[in-house]
Amino acid sequence: MNFKTYIEATGKRAVELAKIAGEISRERGISIAVAPQFTDIKPVVETSGIPVFSQHIDPVKPGAYTGHVLAEALKSSGAVGTLLNHSERRVKISEIEEAVEFARNSDLISLVCANTSGVSAAVAAFDPHMIAVEPPELIGTGIAVSKAKPELITNTVKRIRSVNRNVRILCGAGVSTPDDVSRALELGTEGVLVSSSVVKSTDPRRLLGEMAEAALAGF
Amino acid sequence: MNFKTYIEATGKRAVELAKIAGEISRERGISIAVAPQFTDIKPVVETSGIPVFSQHIDPVKPGAYTGHVLAEALKSSGAVGTLLNHSERRVKISEIEEAVEFARNSDLISLVCANTSGVSAAVAAFDPHMIAVEPPELIGTGIAVSKAKPELITNTVKRIRSVNRNVRILCGAGVSTPDDVSRALELGTEGVLVSSSVVKSTDPRRLLGEMAEAALAGF
Amino acid sequence: MNFKTYIEATGKRAVELAKIAGEISRERGISIAVAPQFTDIKPVVETSGIPVFSQHIDPVKPGAYTGHVLAEALKSSGAVGTLLNHSERRVKISEIEEAVEFARNSDLISLVCANTSGVSAAVAAFDPHMIAVEPPELIGTGIAVSKAKPELITNTVKRIRSVNRNVRILCGAGVSTPDDVSRALELGTEGVLVSSSVVKSTDPRRLLGEMAEAALAGF
Amino acid sequence: MNFKTYIEATGKRAVELAKIAGEISRERGISIAVAPQFTDIKPVVETSGIPVFSQHIDPVKPGAYTGHVLAEALKSSGAVGTLLNHSERRVKISEIEEAVEFARNSDLISLVCANTSGVSAAVAAFDPHMIAVEPPELIGTGIAVSKAKPELITNTVKRIRSVNRNVRILCGAGVSTPDDVSRALELGTEGVLVSSSVVKSTDPRRLLGEMAEAALAGF
Repeated sequence: MNFKTYIEATGKRAVELAKIAGEISRERGISIAVAPQFTDIKPVVETSGIPVFSQHIDPVKPGAYTGHVLAEALKSSGAVGTLLNHSERRVKISEIEEAVEFARNSDLISLVCANTSGVSAAVAAFDPHMIAVEPPELIGTGIAVSKAKPELITNTVKRIRSVNRNVRILCGAGVSTPDDVSRALELGTEGVLVSSSVVKSTDPRRLLGEMAEAALAGF
Repeated sequence: MNFKTYIEATGKRAVELAKIAGEISRERGISIAVAPQFTDIKPVVETSGIPVFSQHIDPVKPGAYTGHVLAEALKSSGAVGTLLNHSERRVKISEIEEAVEFARNSDLISLVCANTSGVSAAVAAFDPHMIAVEPPELIGTGIAVSKAKPELITNTVKRIRSVNRNVRILCGAGVSTPDDVSRALELGTEGVLVSSSVVKSTDPRRLLGEMAEAALAGF
Repeated sequence: MNFKTYIEATGKRAVELAKIAGEISRERGISIAVAPQFTDIKPVVETSGIPVFSQHIDPVKPGAYTGHVLAEALKSSGAVGTLLNHSERRVKISEIEEAVEFARNSDLISLVCANTSGVSAAVAAFDPHMIAVEPPELIGTGIAVSKAKPELITNTVKRIRSVNRNVRILCGAGVSTPDDVSRALELGTEGVLVSSSVVKSTDPRRLLGEMAEAALAGF
Repeated sequence: MNFKTYIEATGKRAVELAKIAGEISRERGISIAVAPQFTDIKPVVETSGIPVFSQHIDPVKPGAYTGHVLAEALKSSGAVGTLLNHSERRVKISEIEEAVEFARNSDLISLVCANTSGVSAAVAAFDPHMIAVEPPELIGTGIAVSKAKPELITNTVKRIRSVNRNVRILCGAGVSTPDDVSRALELGTEGVLVSSSVVKSTDPRRLLGEMAEAALAGF
């Protein structure tokens, strides 16, 4: 679950939301990770009991890099992984290869986002741990990629698999109901990225719980 | 003091270094602020007792902005201000105006870095709280701008003052001895930015203490 | 007149449009410059008889810079100046200072675009030849800045003049009728930037001619 | 041959150098293309008689994109293709996919540069016409990649071929002697990218001629 810079998932509210995700995760026995803002990583790690990701990482080593996100700093704050190349924070192709490598060297899981099936296949060459395909035109719309563009997902899975047998494949954009989750798994992905639908939900516990159940049924 | 992404100032070592800065600040009665990495802001705030700055801020409001640094998140983590446009993280001119405004709206102090006297005069038009002029060719060299280019500093002070009467003026780049600090104040600045000289010092407490004394003598 | 990447102002159609501008300029005795795409600069210079600007310049010297726009190359192709920092191609603040200097060293006129009055005042510190204020939210709308936001223009003129006595001030965004031109000059600017209104006009000759007359009356 | 922004390959000197390349190409019956600066594309097309590439293309369609490089403009100026993602002008991964598609739609040949074998394999997923692997640390050194890092080339060829059967593979960086060309072809590439060695040569005609012979012998 990507917290983005939503005010409903900033500071104390990030901690609260992550706690809920942690409870659902333990109750249902399903794997949920959260990606809060950089400043909230440590407090969320300390309270949620679930895997915490960064929303970005820079391909830099320790040194004179003001304002950058260092793998070692993520690691020391308790993060277990990081998103990269989200449609709201796209990076150069050479930076993706380098950042995946920096993450690997710090034992961080790399989850590379891709806006198309072509970009998904391309980043598969860098052998990250996970790839999430998210058509940007659906992000935040409530129209799930798994419903609106099922062929995009199946095509993405196929193209990634022709390059890389091991990488885990997720999908995102518009995923907002338990049914969207079910459909995503049916189409061959192994998980979903959610954001605004849960973050801005009036009852995130209930929605997350239902999504978790849909996911369990789908495996 | 800018912690950059130095490993000597990451995670627990960021907390330790900030504690030392806090002690020096209280012992000598001199104002010292630290700018750790994003993930270290909250723990440094909780342990150091001195003002904590971010190394960067993005000109975005709460919403769908993955991987960005939000003013409200800095505020909620206890930061009191932020660097912006450091030579290692330069931004577009329109972003500086917007980010200074976002900082102001969240009661965060904005410290805009400038690589030349011209850029210093330009950013003065945005009325940030502080401007730090740092010629990038001296950063990390140990050759202090206040010694190597004194005329750059006096010229910068003059140019900024022709545009803006109130902004506080700092200087940085290569500042590594108490004498460098004295010279910087003599030339009309109101403080210094230090980084590698202290962060990588074998005895940061002693060096910071001596710099603090030099600063006190200079006021 | 900024040709952008409009197809109506690309290749042969750029040459045709610039010829029309040249004729209007000579007939009415008014100064009109055109800014075609990089590849069209030379043919437009050779046929239009009016000043030709580039749409962008990079702050690089001759050397190993693939895909960059070099001052010397603009000069040798016959351009007399360049736009910089247009809202559709914003650059870092340090690059503006450098590029204005590179342009000056090659005897090219620099026309720096600014999205707000604050940015206008800031870039005035770099002493370019001209500053054009263009609120991006009005670009391409047909709603002229000189009508919709007259106070923005008067405020911009005032702020720029407090920093720089000599720079010429233009305004743009939404300028689409002769009356918009008149208003812009009344408000204290010395010219206008036009684009889509003329480029996409069914009768650019007539529209440009009427705008020229409005401008003449306004001086 | 990439002209970059070398002064020896700007304006009239670009035309002269391209003429020499054209003569060598016809005399030896070998394919040589040149990539001059944007402003020099049209005059080089008109005088050299050989294929002319742009050094960059932007993934934009005709419209309101100031300072961008439009496929249609390249086409209308007579270019037959374009470089993309050169180490001196790296772009975001999503832009590579889009720009290759824009080039294809305008019948332009896309030559995507890659700094490593991993990036080469990644861009192969976008099915450009050609991929050139160029380790940036060797560019401009005179130390040929084909000699210093032969295993990089063979590995790149292998990795690209596992993804894409058809794309043509070139190599570059430090290629400065006929022998460097021979080695590159022996290692399985189908051509080379040269720049400073020829552009800054005291006798480009002789050097190009000898490289052409080496290439002929290598096929």
